[in-house]
Amino acid sequence: MKFQAKVNVSLKEGVLDPQGQTIGNALLDLGFENILKVKTGKIFTLEIEAETESDATRAASEAASRLLANPVIEQFKVEVVL
Amino acid sequence: MKFQAKVNVSLKEGVLDPQGQTIGNALLDLGFENILKVKTGKIFTLEIEAETESDATRAASEAASRLLANPVIEQFKVEVVL
Repeated sequence: MKFQAKVNVSLKEGVLDPQGQTIGNALLDLGFENILKVKTGKIFTLEIEAETESDATRAASEAASRLLANPVIEQFKVEVVL
Repeated sequence: MKFQAKVNVSLKEGVLDPQGQTIGNALLDLGFENILKVKTGKIFTLEIEAETESDATRAASEAASRLLANPVIEQFKVEVVL
């Protein structure tokens, strides 16, 4: 059965996010004074062939920890849909 | 009131995703034969000061269309939480 997994990779709490800060400053320059903070992250959508949803979740989590996320500075969250 | 908006930016249908293909090939090399396809995207988490949820949604959508997404090749989805 085919599953779709979304792997959301974001910086760990406390890790500097210069890209987010730059975007925040640019938004301020554009007049968005009500946008106080910007944090950036990546999202990977995986198409997985698996028997069960938990197999798909396991494959996505393993892919995330081995390749998609840098465990030193990033954390990830996996969400599987049919 | 403070709101948190998540802006999910992804490539439009039909736009090539070489980064996703490269990651897909790398996962295949690592033995993940059940991961058939990888698509990449970006996620921006905005902290917004707004009166109502719909004001926050409007600010996030405007920021997305003016700066966060490239309308030629990308689409975006906004989700606001408290």
